[in-house]
Amino acid sequence: MRARSKIWIEKNKKLIFGEGKSEIFKAIQEHKSINKAAKSMGVSFRHAWSYINEIEKRLGVHLVDRSKGGKGGGGSHLTEYAVELMKRFDRLKNEVDKYTDKKAKEVFGGWKNMRY
Amino acid sequence: MRARSKIWIEKNKKLIFGEGKSEIFKAIQEHKSINKAAKSMGVSFRHAWSYINEIEKRLGVHLVDRSKGGKGGGGSHLTEYAVELMKRFDRLKNEVDKYTDKKAKEVFGGWKNMRY
Repeated sequence: MRARSKIWIEKNKKLIFGEGKSEIFKAIQEHKSINKAAKSMGVSFRHAWSYINEIEKRLGVHLVDRSKGGKGGGGSHLTEYAVELMKRFDRLKNEVDKYTDKKAKEVFGGWKNMRY
Repeated sequence: MRARSKIWIEKNKKLIFGEGKSEIFKAIQEHKSINKAAKSMGVSFRHAWSYINEIEKRLGVHLVDRSKGGKGGGGSHLTEYAVELMKRFDRLKNEVDKYTDKKAKEVFGGWKNMRY
């Protein structure tokens, strides 16, 4: 038996950031390209792009810097804000995971055949 | 901005109990009938019934007592075990919700324009 948890951030009841979104950010950080990031995750470029635009609008901040063309071709990288958002979200997620596990042991541990 | 959380219980990586399942249990408790409970939730009797059977098998316990026929017709009610499972799950859910909110204020509060 194991208690699992999932968290996400909402603003005006709309999703701002969650575990799936965090994956997109991580992939952009790694690949330095929205296109490659989207491919690595098996989602369309359109999907990744529109998500980023949507959240930038909702938060009123820049999350990804896009540079076009140039000798080495274009590239994208996360803004400082996006990196910090990702870090803080991960920190919150880790804390909630640990707490859920600890609390579940208290709530279910030793109860009948739950063998938590 | 608000951090939201969701929890569920797994056994051998399979879902045992979660927020949707808890709703089915509550509806059975209220309607004293799997059929009426399913209707009230807009799911099929088959769906509710097979979920209950599945979880009973996975946990190796009885969750719902079904009585058939008789003067007042049949009826179903939760076993003591199921009532206790529901209560403990709700307790864990409340604690995790409170913790997520508190921790999110710590993690995001006062950070740039997050206005948590």
